[in-house]
Amino acid sequence: MPLNETEKLAQIVCPLFAEDDGVKVELDNGSTATNILGVSDQDDCSAYSLSGEQTLVFGSDYVRGPKFSLYENGHIGNYDIGWYLAGANLSDIAAMGAKPLGLTSVVRYPREMPENEFAQVMRGIRDCCREHGTQNVGGDIGTAERLILCGSAIGVVEPGGLLRRSRAAPGQVVILTGSTGLAGAAMKYGSRYTPEQSEQCSEFQRLITKWRRVQPRFGHARILSRFGAEVGACVDTSDGLRGALEEVCKRSSVGIVIEDSLVPRDPGVELLAGILGLDVLETIFGDSVDFELLATVSEQAWPLIREALQSEGLAVHMIGTVIEGDTSKLQANGMLSSIPGTAWRH
Amino acid sequence: MPLNETEKLAQIVCPLFAEDDGVKVELDNGSTATNILGVSDQDDCSAYSLSGEQTLVFGSDYVRGPKFSLYENGHIGNYDIGWYLAGANLSDIAAMGAKPLGLTSVVRYPREMPENEFAQVMRGIRDCCREHGTQNVGGDIGTAERLILCGSAIGVVEPGGLLRRSRAAPGQVVILTGSTGLAGAAMKYGSRYTPEQSEQCSEFQRLITKWRRVQPRFGHARILSRFGAEVGACVDTSDGLRGALEEVCKRSSVGIVIEDSLVPRDPGVELLAGILGLDVLETIFGDSVDFELLATVSEQAWPLIREALQSEGLAVHMIGTVIEGDTSKLQANGMLSSIPGTAWRH
Repeated sequence: MPLNETEKLAQIVCPLFAEDDGVKVELDNGSTATNILGVSDQDDCSAYSLSGEQTLVFGSDYVRGPKFSLYENGHIGNYDIGWYLAGANLSDIAAMGAKPLGLTSVVRYPREMPENEFAQVMRGIRDCCREHGTQNVGGDIGTAERLILCGSAIGVVEPGGLLRRSRAAPGQVVILTGSTGLAGAAMKYGSRYTPEQSEQCSEFQRLITKWRRVQPRFGHARILSRFGAEVGACVDTSDGLRGALEEVCKRSSVGIVIEDSLVPRDPGVELLAGILGLDVLETIFGDSVDFELLATVSEQAWPLIREALQSEGLAVHMIGTVIEGDTSKLQANGMLSSIPGTAWRH
Repeated sequence: MPLNETEKLAQIVCPLFAEDDGVKVELDNGSTATNILGVSDQDDCSAYSLSGEQTLVFGSDYVRGPKFSLYENGHIGNYDIGWYLAGANLSDIAAMGAKPLGLTSVVRYPREMPENEFAQVMRGIRDCCREHGTQNVGGDIGTAERLILCGSAIGVVEPGGLLRRSRAAPGQVVILTGSTGLAGAAMKYGSRYTPEQSEQCSEFQRLITKWRRVQPRFGHARILSRFGAEVGACVDTSDGLRGALEEVCKRSSVGIVIEDSLVPRDPGVELLAGILGLDVLETIFGDSVDFELLATVSEQAWPLIREALQSEGLAVHMIGTVIEGDTSKLQANGMLSSIPGTAWRH
């Protein structure tokens, strides 16, 4: 007999999450947010005690498991998809410059799903939250005809430190926290080759961790947040780099010129693109869910921001500039062309 | 051609939700929470400016549409299921004594779903939020092989006013904000009869509004919250009255005696139970998702609480008492027996 919902809560979910209850977040201005009700309380909601001025952020993301090729063909397991659920939701919090307060996860499972597979999803959620200093504080479990995964996350940031999509301005420089295209190249490779066939390809094994261990860029985000109005726009690249660029242009009513020679190229992306016959630039700019941050910052603050990031060991690349206009372009050898690739469509 | 995700956001979602952006909530202690980023900003998250001491609550609920009999057989339409999604999530906020700050909704739709049906789901969400003075501030839309609905809600309450499940104590009285069994009776009737067959049954038409227009009990909850420690436990009856009683006993380590003659009986429940051959008490206590509040309050405060509720035109029923023990019982003619019915199992 499979465990029912109440038994799963008591035997699997609470033991996993309860020891993380009670996380306290302190902001630079002394404001605090402390978890006072978590999973182990099994109340109608989780609860936090808040003190002082702060900006709260709140977002939700659905995650495919079934109907997503990498999960269906075994490249991503149940632990990985749990981690992904938490990571994707936390990345939205990071993109606002906030510290995470907590996550709720909706995990609906088919009746016949073995307990250990359900527990693996939960463990992935727990470990991703823990890695980023936060906790799963609630959610909803129960049966459905297939695995259904949704999450929501909340976070807090100092007033004035909120990072938005809408404040890019001409003259700012465009920065990126890491190479893109890794997740997209891994997805296309993994859709063509089975896990067994992929075992020998060490670059694929490295790139697939982009899916298995999403890492929201809280380190970068919190430093950017401290620069306040020196930061124009910030968005995560969960719709791909081209998608992120288009979004900043649209929300901020600006144009962007990306300098081809400045765009970071991961050798694994070039290798997999070669194997698969893909265009490298289309892979870098296209539908790759890398969860990097794309931001625009004032020219004066850029050296300080670079130094602040690098002194924490955090990578950053200046890849272009904000101009008057309404779209983004790629410049190579002085020639402007459209940004390659297509944005991720959910 | 159906609209894609971006077009749906621009043409359906934003126009519906944008005018509600910017809701401000003020608590009795002067603390405030103001929405500063909503749906129309289409950022990674929504955002709120918070000032002062407050307790934040945060919860998530999955809602069946497909695979739920009343939706599949047409008793509940797309507008209703959208309203339900918002109402079920907001009820969790009410059960904590909080004012709602906002909702995120995940609405994944099959590619072939007509635009007007998708818009009806969104309109239901919008109208339920609006009725309760709050707003849909974000979420996630996109395709899936069938309609998938999840929500999350946040709210704020004065420190000391948080209603929990765990503080019932012997000697307190047990109160209920309205009759139960209505939703359960309507569900069972609606599973047996088609919408056409049900047209003539005016009591069914009245009871089915429990599904079509979920009304979280914010009015009651906010008054209870002001009584602070005079309130022991509070929980919504979304798992049925028996489920709620069991939950209070478990979380508070108490027993409860419900007095049969004090339990409110809706004539519609008695009528439908008669038609369907159901036991009336099993219907009242069983798997009926009525979204009433069950609470325990001190004996001294009870007359004041009753007066405060009644002066606002809010119904309330004293139905029993908290005792030492670990389970709930029904007392009729001086005899104790088990609480009838079974709790809702998701």
